[in-house]
Amino acid sequence: MRLHIGLVHYPVYNKNEQRIASAVTPVDLHDLARIGRTYGVTTFTVVTPLKDQQGLVERIRHHWTAGFGASYNPHRKKALELVTLTDSLEDGIEKIHSMEKEEPFVLATDASRQKENMLSFPDARDMIRQDRVVFLLFGTAWGLDQEVLRQSDAVLEPVMGVTAYNHLPVRAAAAIILDRLVGAHP
Amino acid sequence: MRLHIGLVHYPVYNKNEQRIASAVTPVDLHDLARIGRTYGVTTFTVVTPLKDQQGLVERIRHHWTAGFGASYNPHRKKALELVTLTDSLEDGIEKIHSMEKEEPFVLATDASRQKENMLSFPDARDMIRQDRVVFLLFGTAWGLDQEVLRQSDAVLEPVMGVTAYNHLPVRAAAAIILDRLVGAHP
Repeated sequence: MRLHIGLVHYPVYNKNEQRIASAVTPVDLHDLARIGRTYGVTTFTVVTPLKDQQGLVERIRHHWTAGFGASYNPHRKKALELVTLTDSLEDGIEKIHSMEKEEPFVLATDASRQKENMLSFPDARDMIRQDRVVFLLFGTAWGLDQEVLRQSDAVLEPVMGVTAYNHLPVRAAAAIILDRLVGAHP
Repeated sequence: MRLHIGLVHYPVYNKNEQRIASAVTPVDLHDLARIGRTYGVTTFTVVTPLKDQQGLVERIRHHWTAGFGASYNPHRKKALELVTLTDSLEDGIEKIHSMEKEEPFVLATDASRQKENMLSFPDARDMIRQDRVVFLLFGTAWGLDQEVLRQSDAVLEPVMGVTAYNHLPVRAAAAIILDRLVGAHP
């Protein structure tokens, strides 16, 4: 399996649908790292152009992989070792390209149903099983900018619960999506 | 559907396998409320005997359902309205019993594979579909005390990723489990 995940802090929307660079949420780093490790992803890329936010990511990563946290909780070390940083989505894609010697298929996620360019869960699952390099993107704040959705190779169909309520935290959406895409279902 | 979820803070284990009452983690309240709302659960019971922790739950609930948060983010209001508090698991079960006029089937969750009393995902899904009242329990800290597992009607089979890593946050486990039990799968 050559599945990579990315947590994008720019460009994303705020609640007023303005394009912003969001702040890093430490619990998202921990949760996506632990979920990613559980489901066997290759890397977890945190995308942010903000230097202070990059510093925060580096401090968290260092604390848990080399600092006190590493001996306090080795499971957390194993998870946070997945984390890597990039300034931009383009750089993140380029890094995966050069690591895998293959251009990644960029698969964005979005909470609303796209009209075009949508990939179903079964088709995405097949693609990952066939060992295609896939870069699965999650947006923070109010979600990935439309430009990212347009420039991606496809947008994954949204997770719909069983009600009209459609406001999952990105941590929960990532858990459900990875379970659907690579989980061993009974 | 008559599915209720509970987040148990006592009795649970700490990392040294001692029985403790854990502290409330605000992000767990928000996430389980949002996940519960997405998947149509009837109530979300927070179980803690600690008065100061009950006070924390009440302050969070009040802020988002009646205070500033309610107008700032109505989606969060709708989620946190699900939250109810009890001193003990027994009280939580009794409340659901009297609300539903039927004794709930108590279904515990655990990260490791049980030998006895285990219910598979498909069987649990069928039970919920057949409108049985189910109280699905999640443990905080290092998981539900063995006593809770023994006294429950069944223990749900664990979520296994595709690696040996078995350390999902309870927020992520709850998201995956609710998606598997009630999600509309493509």
